[in-house]
Amino acid sequence: MYVGVDVGGTKVLAVEISETGEVVRIARDSTPGRGDPVSELEDALTRAVEAVRDGRALTSVGLAAAGLVEPSGETVRFAPHLPWREERVRERLAARWGAAVVLDNDAHCAAEAELALGAGRDAGSFLLVNIGTGIGGGVVLDGRVWRGAGGMAGEFGHMQVVPDGLACECGLRGCWEQYCSGRALERVVRVALGSHLDGAEVTARALAGDELARQAFTSIGTWLGVGLASLVAAFDPALLVVGGGVSTGGDLLLDPAREALARSLMAASHRTVPQIVPAALGSAGGAIGAALLARRSSAVGG
Amino acid sequence: MYVGVDVGGTKVLAVEISETGEVVRIARDSTPGRGDPVSELEDALTRAVEAVRDGRALTSVGLAAAGLVEPSGETVRFAPHLPWREERVRERLAARWGAAVVLDNDAHCAAEAELALGAGRDAGSFLLVNIGTGIGGGVVLDGRVWRGAGGMAGEFGHMQVVPDGLACECGLRGCWEQYCSGRALERVVRVALGSHLDGAEVTARALAGDELARQAFTSIGTWLGVGLASLVAAFDPALLVVGGGVSTGGDLLLDPAREALARSLMAASHRTVPQIVPAALGSAGGAIGAALLARRSSAVGG
Repeated sequence: MYVGVDVGGTKVLAVEISETGEVVRIARDSTPGRGDPVSELEDALTRAVEAVRDGRALTSVGLAAAGLVEPSGETVRFAPHLPWREERVRERLAARWGAAVVLDNDAHCAAEAELALGAGRDAGSFLLVNIGTGIGGGVVLDGRVWRGAGGMAGEFGHMQVVPDGLACECGLRGCWEQYCSGRALERVVRVALGSHLDGAEVTARALAGDELARQAFTSIGTWLGVGLASLVAAFDPALLVVGGGVSTGGDLLLDPAREALARSLMAASHRTVPQIVPAALGSAGGAIGAALLARRSSAVGG
Repeated sequence: MYVGVDVGGTKVLAVEISETGEVVRIARDSTPGRGDPVSELEDALTRAVEAVRDGRALTSVGLAAAGLVEPSGETVRFAPHLPWREERVRERLAARWGAAVVLDNDAHCAAEAELALGAGRDAGSFLLVNIGTGIGGGVVLDGRVWRGAGGMAGEFGHMQVVPDGLACECGLRGCWEQYCSGRALERVVRVALGSHLDGAEVTARALAGDELARQAFTSIGTWLGVGLASLVAAFDPALLVVGGGVSTGGDLLLDPAREALARSLMAASHRTVPQIVPAALGSAGGAIGAALLARRSSAVGG
């Protein structure tokens, strides 16, 4: 049994995958706030894993965390939306669950899944940009996920795109995710409408044709393309894959991004401008990738 | 005999290296303007190669070009400061010189050299940022230079750092190299002084203690750190290597960059902030790297 659990800022998602990577069982829970005790978060994870396990023997679990995971995969160093701070999560949950646990960053896990089973299967190199509350990212080069010297590659959301720009939860200013994320979508609508709608509502309205909601998608989609142009200048990937909750806006998000990318990319007429495509595995990519890592590590171990 | 030639926006540098990578012979020429015929550029290259060759048999030459080289290494697609546009340079120069020619981007060559012989020897992963007229870059991950799906990785200078910012020669606005380069150094001084000094003069004055020239270095050094913070967020390299003509300013450039990096990097207190070190091979890195590629390809061929 290969189980993967994705721990995001708002929800916990656990999946069991088959040998071929199909999701055969799924469980959800909500994530406690970052001010809540660590034990509550780990209880929520445990409930989700138990629900998927359903009384069967558990051998190996992959854990995808929305935070900075150090390269050995023992510790979550920092997670802006979770209570973990320098916590040795892998060892503790392995003991609690009586199973091998593999820990990695959620976007790196999602990149593993898109590489093995999803939109990046044929690409060789791609960047995954996951737009949810903030932006998470994965870097795939020569068919491998580049995790970074300290395990922290792909933190695209904290590239500075506006000097002295909007304040970010990370403590910096002008971070890309302040202009292109679920939070940014909500802000654009709040400024225009004077009232709060959450990202899912904005998305529903935009898909139903509401002009203001569509303009909000155009705004963050344009910023998506501008930021992607910088990433393409730096990495020159074959493909750009966009996932995360906000990507359910589909071409309302991606079309303005495509236009902005073509306009903002250096020497666009002398190169192949990479395609921007939606992630194939949707919001389950992190959990599926974590399960793939669990499978890979049990294959190595066994 | 391993010969490498670096074709930059202002000069041509040819070197011969020994088996151990030491430079044993060197020749310089000036680069014709980008409006001049291609033949004049290729004549200048040929003169430099002939000067290094000095009548001996020539077997293999590496060519490092300040431009976009397509992945097969046949064609220079676009070079902002050179007359080559979609030119099949490799084949033509190989025929002219009666030697095997290996063609690559100049910053990729410099990254090869810093990896094999220079500041990146022990790093495993590093980014090379070459600050000259503009910014060229090299990406080294897991001990290999990542060239990009289209051979164009490392064009860091054209990441947008200021929305609707200064116009760039590439046709875009707000590119990093408008704020951090030899041209930017000259602009800062011109604005403050009302008269033009070239980059070398500004550097000489700054090293001699001139306050205005030092402030100009602080300005571009600070922008260097801000841009590096975005690159570190994306790549998480073990090391940052800064080369190019402007890096002769040494710590006048690098100290403000170090301060700005520490201040601008997401979660700096939860990670190892990579060191910023000067390139070890100075302005000869591109030519040395090209010679290394020539050596590698003749080893494979023979």
